[in-house]
Amino acid sequence: MVSTNDGAAQLDRLVARFQAVASPLRQHLAELHGELARADAGSVAGYIPELARARPEWFGISVVTLDGQACDVGDAQVPFTIQSISKPLVYGMALDHLGLDEVLRRVGVEPSGDPFNAVLVDERSCRPHNPMVNAGAIATSDLIPGAGATERLHVLLETFRRYTGREVSIDGAVFTSERETGHRNRAIAHLMRNFGMLSPRLEESLDLYFQQCSVLVTTRDLAAIAATLANGGVNPLTGERAIAAAHVRHVLSVMYSCGMYDSAGEWAFEVGLPAKSGVAGGIMAVVPGQGGIGVFSPPLDRSGNSVRGVATCRALVQRYDLHLLSGTARSSALRDAARRG
Amino acid sequence: MVSTNDGAAQLDRLVARFQAVASPLRQHLAELHGELARADAGSVAGYIPELARARPEWFGISVVTLDGQACDVGDAQVPFTIQSISKPLVYGMALDHLGLDEVLRRVGVEPSGDPFNAVLVDERSCRPHNPMVNAGAIATSDLIPGAGATERLHVLLETFRRYTGREVSIDGAVFTSERETGHRNRAIAHLMRNFGMLSPRLEESLDLYFQQCSVLVTTRDLAAIAATLANGGVNPLTGERAIAAAHVRHVLSVMYSCGMYDSAGEWAFEVGLPAKSGVAGGIMAVVPGQGGIGVFSPPLDRSGNSVRGVATCRALVQRYDLHLLSGTARSSALRDAARRG
Amino acid sequence: MVSTNDGAAQLDRLVARFQAVASPLRQHLAELHGELARADAGSVAGYIPELARARPEWFGISVVTLDGQACDVGDAQVPFTIQSISKPLVYGMALDHLGLDEVLRRVGVEPSGDPFNAVLVDERSCRPHNPMVNAGAIATSDLIPGAGATERLHVLLETFRRYTGREVSIDGAVFTSERETGHRNRAIAHLMRNFGMLSPRLEESLDLYFQQCSVLVTTRDLAAIAATLANGGVNPLTGERAIAAAHVRHVLSVMYSCGMYDSAGEWAFEVGLPAKSGVAGGIMAVVPGQGGIGVFSPPLDRSGNSVRGVATCRALVQRYDLHLLSGTARSSALRDAARRG
Amino acid sequence: MVSTNDGAAQLDRLVARFQAVASPLRQHLAELHGELARADAGSVAGYIPELARARPEWFGISVVTLDGQACDVGDAQVPFTIQSISKPLVYGMALDHLGLDEVLRRVGVEPSGDPFNAVLVDERSCRPHNPMVNAGAIATSDLIPGAGATERLHVLLETFRRYTGREVSIDGAVFTSERETGHRNRAIAHLMRNFGMLSPRLEESLDLYFQQCSVLVTTRDLAAIAATLANGGVNPLTGERAIAAAHVRHVLSVMYSCGMYDSAGEWAFEVGLPAKSGVAGGIMAVVPGQGGIGVFSPPLDRSGNSVRGVATCRALVQRYDLHLLSGTARSSALRDAARRG
Repeated sequence: MVSTNDGAAQLDRLVARFQAVASPLRQHLAELHGELARADAGSVAGYIPELARARPEWFGISVVTLDGQACDVGDAQVPFTIQSISKPLVYGMALDHLGLDEVLRRVGVEPSGDPFNAVLVDERSCRPHNPMVNAGAIATSDLIPGAGATERLHVLLETFRRYTGREVSIDGAVFTSERETGHRNRAIAHLMRNFGMLSPRLEESLDLYFQQCSVLVTTRDLAAIAATLANGGVNPLTGERAIAAAHVRHVLSVMYSCGMYDSAGEWAFEVGLPAKSGVAGGIMAVVPGQGGIGVFSPPLDRSGNSVRGVATCRALVQRYDLHLLSGTARSSALRDAARRG
Repeated sequence: MVSTNDGAAQLDRLVARFQAVASPLRQHLAELHGELARADAGSVAGYIPELARARPEWFGISVVTLDGQACDVGDAQVPFTIQSISKPLVYGMALDHLGLDEVLRRVGVEPSGDPFNAVLVDERSCRPHNPMVNAGAIATSDLIPGAGATERLHVLLETFRRYTGREVSIDGAVFTSERETGHRNRAIAHLMRNFGMLSPRLEESLDLYFQQCSVLVTTRDLAAIAATLANGGVNPLTGERAIAAAHVRHVLSVMYSCGMYDSAGEWAFEVGLPAKSGVAGGIMAVVPGQGGIGVFSPPLDRSGNSVRGVATCRALVQRYDLHLLSGTARSSALRDAARRG
Repeated sequence: MVSTNDGAAQLDRLVARFQAVASPLRQHLAELHGELARADAGSVAGYIPELARARPEWFGISVVTLDGQACDVGDAQVPFTIQSISKPLVYGMALDHLGLDEVLRRVGVEPSGDPFNAVLVDERSCRPHNPMVNAGAIATSDLIPGAGATERLHVLLETFRRYTGREVSIDGAVFTSERETGHRNRAIAHLMRNFGMLSPRLEESLDLYFQQCSVLVTTRDLAAIAATLANGGVNPLTGERAIAAAHVRHVLSVMYSCGMYDSAGEWAFEVGLPAKSGVAGGIMAVVPGQGGIGVFSPPLDRSGNSVRGVATCRALVQRYDLHLLSGTARSSALRDAARRG
Repeated sequence: MVSTNDGAAQLDRLVARFQAVASPLRQHLAELHGELARADAGSVAGYIPELARARPEWFGISVVTLDGQACDVGDAQVPFTIQSISKPLVYGMALDHLGLDEVLRRVGVEPSGDPFNAVLVDERSCRPHNPMVNAGAIATSDLIPGAGATERLHVLLETFRRYTGREVSIDGAVFTSERETGHRNRAIAHLMRNFGMLSPRLEESLDLYFQQCSVLVTTRDLAAIAATLANGGVNPLTGERAIAAAHVRHVLSVMYSCGMYDSAGEWAFEVGLPAKSGVAGGIMAVVPGQGGIGVFSPPLDRSGNSVRGVATCRALVQRYDLHLLSGTARSSALRDAARRG
């Protein structure tokens, strides 16, 4: 008779064996991880104690390809809060729920040229600039359907589950902290309420926004989310659809032009992949038609993006020629690299 | 013996026959042209008399594919001034001449969030925001190499020739008018001079900028330029290289994020192709790996983009699924459509 | 023996007789009133139903001089809400309570160049720009001392009483309406809370702010308040001190540079008196060393100032040479004019 | 018979004797000078070599009262360039020449909220914001009448002569330097030309502007100019009129609200006198009805105002209660203090 512990141990061994398989991609990721782990630039976000406690040396990378291969190196199992990386997912939920036209009436798609947390909306079009700045993300959260706080949260978590392929949970301490100190987001919400951009259930939607930011994920989760978007909306690990195919390009478009805070232009220029970063140190990048990349490392640069996360994406794009506008990119570069030699 | 005239006539006939071939693309373009020709929104640019004289009903469309097919409908032979569509070409010249690092030191790659002709630079980075706004374009023109005005103009026109596949000329009346009324661009130049962003040969570089904007082109030329960029820098009609392969993606990146004036975000969202428009009514759009689109129709929308030009690109993208971030796009859609049935 | 009622009636008669006396000022005010009553420019504030109900033809003017003369014409007894004219009074309360240095640490004195209700603070100095914009006024209300909402409101009303010389009350319907629709002010408060510019009793202070704006006054009250400030802080009708002498010039200074919304510069240039206007149609203007002017007429110009109110002040300044920077002004012009012939 | 030289010498002796008289004001100025001379905050303007050569210890103070008394301490005879202090004088010239309405059509009177040298105009009203920012000052210089550069310069210098009571000259080296490095002002001029705010004689007017900034003055000159404005436009030392009485209050108004660069609001709040500072270290302050103050000390604070100049004015205002909005100010404080004991 095999005890549960034995079963877990057995599974661990199986996983270890799989992990041991030396695909060229895994080999390259390991080298890259070793090289970038030595860098110590950037500083961990400290606006709430829960984030400030993150260890600056944490560093994980995961890649999931469309043919279902997965590859993790480093701290790929350390959970962290998804923060702003939740924004494209909730934008997709709004598109699926209300359709493109209705969502466009409520949230724009123009880069704002202002900080992501600016207490500012596009008064000309009477919309927040785009769903990647806080104003737009709060407006998008306000669109999550449901009869009350609990039902709406359930809808949210269920969608996240389809993207990650597993049940996700909320870090209660982070949520409470964000809620208590979120004066700026509260200011944004009231400003939007002033313009009629937000429903009267402002407090509930703000809570939902703080909750979506507090969902716990790993780099593997981020890579799965990214791969789902790279795969037309179907999670390549589970085969489950997370977002309608027709809406994937809308989500990717706003990620491409507005996903990386202040340095969106530089990112589009140098990396050239739809991506989104979060203040806890996560970055996910989508390689359309090929796969998804998830990186986690808490120290942030001045724009608020993970220093090692940006460096990792940059290196992978260069190595495998993944820039969306590179004329010489092959559409199977990532998949081929992920296959064992 | 066949006289030259006879030869030309013979060639005309050959071309006519080729043009008559009813490829699905040509058929579709003709229908599209007929449909959009009826629209009468927008207004012709009127800041100089030369542009104000343009006829609002002018409307031409050209497509050039990477396998060398060309397809024109409507007023594809009416010459007009290239205006801002010259900006990506001159940016590419600067990259070829000085290399990426040096050019990045002088011109940024971030969308500015301000009008294209704003008398404004990024004082933090001490650069114009990007090469698609006037400030950045003037700074880029300043980088055109050569010993004096004439030599530098020659270098410019020679590059344009490689893109279009034919000698191009300058509309002298437009140039003179732009130069005389270009107070705003002169203000921009002096502001940049103030920050040391411009060399002391300010007047000469301004003249060069006014000249590059006054180059006469047709929609066929725009389609050829776009196809050259779609083809990694080699003109698919002549086989001549116009820009180093390594720099093509940089040019396309800034076109993608900053090419369509105020509506760059909306364009990236809905059309999803690197593109550039000019105030005379031209638009060129690049379909990477597939081909180039050139449209001309003088009436402009509020953002300064040709109304029919935008509608044409939007329709083609939808019909052939050309959006860069569309998961279902086939890389041969345009080529196949351009082939005779 | 004379009953109280008889006494009141007797007093009324005395007052009426006094009012009947044809001083040159009264004569001039009556002419001015007749002339300006015919103007019908501007539109009544309509953001809450209570203000929208104001009759556009309401028009009253009052002048109170430092030697205690009072002169009313038109609708001088119609009560209206004081709105932003409460701001200088509450600023004075803060100065009296905390002293200049402490107040300067919390609220600046620079014109903002932005709309009065901008959701914006001076992040460089970590203060609202000045106490005449909403942000600064809310920060000032937050400084009203007291153990709770009721006590603080009592302190507020008691100060207002000393300025007007009579008990004032709050228009409950306006207060409730302002509170319910005050999303923008709520946004401002949360933004300030984010920067630590506001105490945790944010909701209470916002209520206090909405209450101070809803205090009911007449033009006579406004003239008395203005005359109190013109008189070094002592109400010339009652002899009671409303604000410390040392703080009067600080209140007048911010009124001078920031009191008339967008048109503060034009006002200082053309009228040259410390003044404050409110959205209900009131304006008070201080003639230092001479007296106070109160006007009420609901239709507002584009800057939000009463059209007839501005015209009245402009005419009086011109007639009696009251501009603060006029070299030829006599310090007794208003008093002399108010005396019977 | 007495030769002219003898006469001049005699006058010098008389003046010297007068200066020696120990009035309370002179006594106070000497103490103040001694005290503030020890301060060493601020830094000398260095954008052109001519200004950078100024000695940081230079420090002079002059006061001229309306009854013709003059009082100098410290480096009151060191000449320096007037720089921006020329702006109110030229504004007054425009008013005298074209009348208020015409000038208001061309230059506004609103504080801009932007740096004095911003390449920016008020596009809504199609005017520079006010005559104290560079844009407004250049527009005002453009209004100086005359048939050509020489005649217009003559008109300018003649007006300056009436204000100072002596012939003034231009520092040629400073003028040449300003002209060569004035790229920002050139940008401003071209921007205004773009909006039709400047006549075609742009280069000539810019030269005139650079010349007016390069006029050499002493603190005595500044005090005389200020006293002229304090005296309704008549120089109290010479009895000559420099500006029409009706226009004095317009000049003083823009000085009051826009005269001290970024810190105009703070200045109006704390000092409360119409004033103007220049980048060479000069400040002039007007005490309406009483006299004029001139200070010179090159080290500037972050706003661009002379550190010792600001401190001097602040101390004099406090000592003699000169704040314009101080209820207790006596209109003869300065004159009385200037009289011998």
